[in-house]
Amino acid sequence: MADISKIKVDGDRLWRSHMDLAKIGALPGGGCCRLALSDEDREARDLFAGWCADAGCRMEVDRAGNMFATRPGSRDAPPVASGSHLDTQPHGGRFDGIYGVMAALEIIRTLNDHGIETALPVAAVNWTNEEGARFPAGILGSSAYAGKWTLKDLHSLKASDGPLFGDELKRIGYDGSLDLGDFAMSAFFEAHIEQGPVLERENLPVGIVTKVQGLRWYEVTVDGADRHAGTTPMDARKDSLVAAARMIVELEAIGLAHRPDARVTVGRLDVSPNSGSTIPGRTVFNIDLRHPETAVLDRIESEIEELCRKSAAHVRRVIDMPPVDFDAGCLADLERSAGGQAIAHRHMLSGALHDASPVSTMAPAAMIFVPCRDGISHNEAEWAEPEHLEAGCNVLLHAMLARAGVV
Amino acid sequence: MADISKIKVDGDRLWRSHMDLAKIGALPGGGCCRLALSDEDREARDLFAGWCADAGCRMEVDRAGNMFATRPGSRDAPPVASGSHLDTQPHGGRFDGIYGVMAALEIIRTLNDHGIETALPVAAVNWTNEEGARFPAGILGSSAYAGKWTLKDLHSLKASDGPLFGDELKRIGYDGSLDLGDFAMSAFFEAHIEQGPVLERENLPVGIVTKVQGLRWYEVTVDGADRHAGTTPMDARKDSLVAAARMIVELEAIGLAHRPDARVTVGRLDVSPNSGSTIPGRTVFNIDLRHPETAVLDRIESEIEELCRKSAAHVRRVIDMPPVDFDAGCLADLERSAGGQAIAHRHMLSGALHDASPVSTMAPAAMIFVPCRDGISHNEAEWAEPEHLEAGCNVLLHAMLARAGVV
Repeated sequence: MADISKIKVDGDRLWRSHMDLAKIGALPGGGCCRLALSDEDREARDLFAGWCADAGCRMEVDRAGNMFATRPGSRDAPPVASGSHLDTQPHGGRFDGIYGVMAALEIIRTLNDHGIETALPVAAVNWTNEEGARFPAGILGSSAYAGKWTLKDLHSLKASDGPLFGDELKRIGYDGSLDLGDFAMSAFFEAHIEQGPVLERENLPVGIVTKVQGLRWYEVTVDGADRHAGTTPMDARKDSLVAAARMIVELEAIGLAHRPDARVTVGRLDVSPNSGSTIPGRTVFNIDLRHPETAVLDRIESEIEELCRKSAAHVRRVIDMPPVDFDAGCLADLERSAGGQAIAHRHMLSGALHDASPVSTMAPAAMIFVPCRDGISHNEAEWAEPEHLEAGCNVLLHAMLARAGVV
Repeated sequence: MADISKIKVDGDRLWRSHMDLAKIGALPGGGCCRLALSDEDREARDLFAGWCADAGCRMEVDRAGNMFATRPGSRDAPPVASGSHLDTQPHGGRFDGIYGVMAALEIIRTLNDHGIETALPVAAVNWTNEEGARFPAGILGSSAYAGKWTLKDLHSLKASDGPLFGDELKRIGYDGSLDLGDFAMSAFFEAHIEQGPVLERENLPVGIVTKVQGLRWYEVTVDGADRHAGTTPMDARKDSLVAAARMIVELEAIGLAHRPDARVTVGRLDVSPNSGSTIPGRTVFNIDLRHPETAVLDRIESEIEELCRKSAAHVRRVIDMPPVDFDAGCLADLERSAGGQAIAHRHMLSGALHDASPVSTMAPAAMIFVPCRDGISHNEAEWAEPEHLEAGCNVLLHAMLARAGVV
């Protein structure tokens, strides 16, 4: 057997797998549309399942449609798992999520190439509906796995195009028999493109993600009064959009005041009745707040509440995901792997949520990032360099090998 | 024959006609949905046509579906006409537009009751698609009548639900044979609810409308860059919504600076991609600007352009309707009629556009307003008091009689 510490993944094969998957739901601009539990998602799942079978894995599917492909180890113990998601945004790219699943598969193929037997099994995972684009919650499959959803609530979720989650699971043939959370893992690693500018700016191929920012969402409703734009004097108006506009300007100032780590974003805003000649009677918008520290999230939340009070707006917190600190042992494995291969890297935060966040409540977990061009993601122009994908996969390979143990 | 100067319209009959029409396309909240050239619009047209036939009128329909019901006079000359529109907003009321058509019909019925022969004929008019709710331009039929649309462009307009204007006209049986503009009028009067708060605030039953404000619409596009809300630092963003919000706050200040006559409204705003976790890459909004003076419209326009320049936003003027001064002779007739009947009234501007604006380029024209509760319109809660409708109709009656001449 070759010196195991020297083995590498096959970067060309890893790249080809990305490109083969990208044909499913391909868009004219080079991106993909593979909404969760759509026909395109089924096709991608089938392709992935076929690859896993070819690699000698046993496939299990749970009641959320999460897919677990296990390469046996010498011991009958929970596997060291890795993965992410194959679903995309409506105008998504070829790497977001895909990379994590393909990297896990590439590691299994590499172990096969070298005839390596691990002590613990190794598994590749595809989590359902990470994007939250078709069903109304992101990191859905991994959250369900981590016990955040009852089966009934999960299966009753309605797709943006109408059908229910449970019905769509059955329709595409991925309503598995494994109960939620029953697939035990010794550890979970997730590889993902950064979706931000940090690694590219510093010309680093890999980031080791120590922490995921906390996330809170607020729904703000500003009420005014629908009136005719031509007949209602300027000083006799209750214009909900003007009031919302003032708040949005102040929210940016709040975000800037908590630099560099705070993120305060109004990404969604709906004006009603949204007619050119009517003063808007109601404006509803969403605030996305992120920070790595719970204490600072609390402080900014109270500033948001004060702003809403002053503005006579109604505010409601609709999502609260606490910050996640990844497992020190998993991080040490990643650090040693990158160091041992002299792959340049840094520690960093994740600004986005990933499947590893909920999974970290079920097993020791950590993540790595690789750069993506201009930080662009959720966009057809999303791009990652083959050599970065390969470097990240090699970091993952030796961290997982260390964790799984070689017989 | 009775003393003609003493005759009055039948307020109860006028009210019953409103209530009968309101059954067509009735909504649960008391309003109506009668979109132009829909089945409901056809039903309303048929009911109106039947009433006109019962009143001894000859009906003519033009290529825009505008309906002209003429009660003959002793002279073969262009009639003194009055009317408005029977179509409504999707959640419209029972009075907006309807009143003008029902008032014209009530005047014809009143002339019949008293066996009055006029020198000039008298006509009741229903203009097509005043609301611009189903086909993408308001005051459409009256503008087509006034030569602002070619027949080809008019018939090619696409409804919000798909079909073409020309096809829908044929489908409902109102593609008339009269060429656009061929129905000559000696004068045109339009009665309408105010859709604003002025008359109610001053407790006046009637306003004589001397002028319609000029209207300009601008489409403003603010470009930024779609980025992930969690990964993009506050000071590395190009947030199109924050930029638009600053502009909206400044636009309100511009409107206030030109009090009391200026109206500056952002009624429509669309954020893209409008996703909670994405910094909005593009925000497009509409500015509705109104003022009675062209010179002030020009001044405010240059302030808007300067604001867009400073904000690196793209601005395009998409509508330009100059202010309209109504005909002095028609106004004098209305004034004498109201004074002669001791009906309290004031002169006022119209903040909204009405069919009388384009028609005023074809014939001497003027308008009257009656109050509506809380100034509410384009809303199921729209309400006008029966006695105000009656008073307005009496003002209209004697102005039209004066204009038409009694034999």
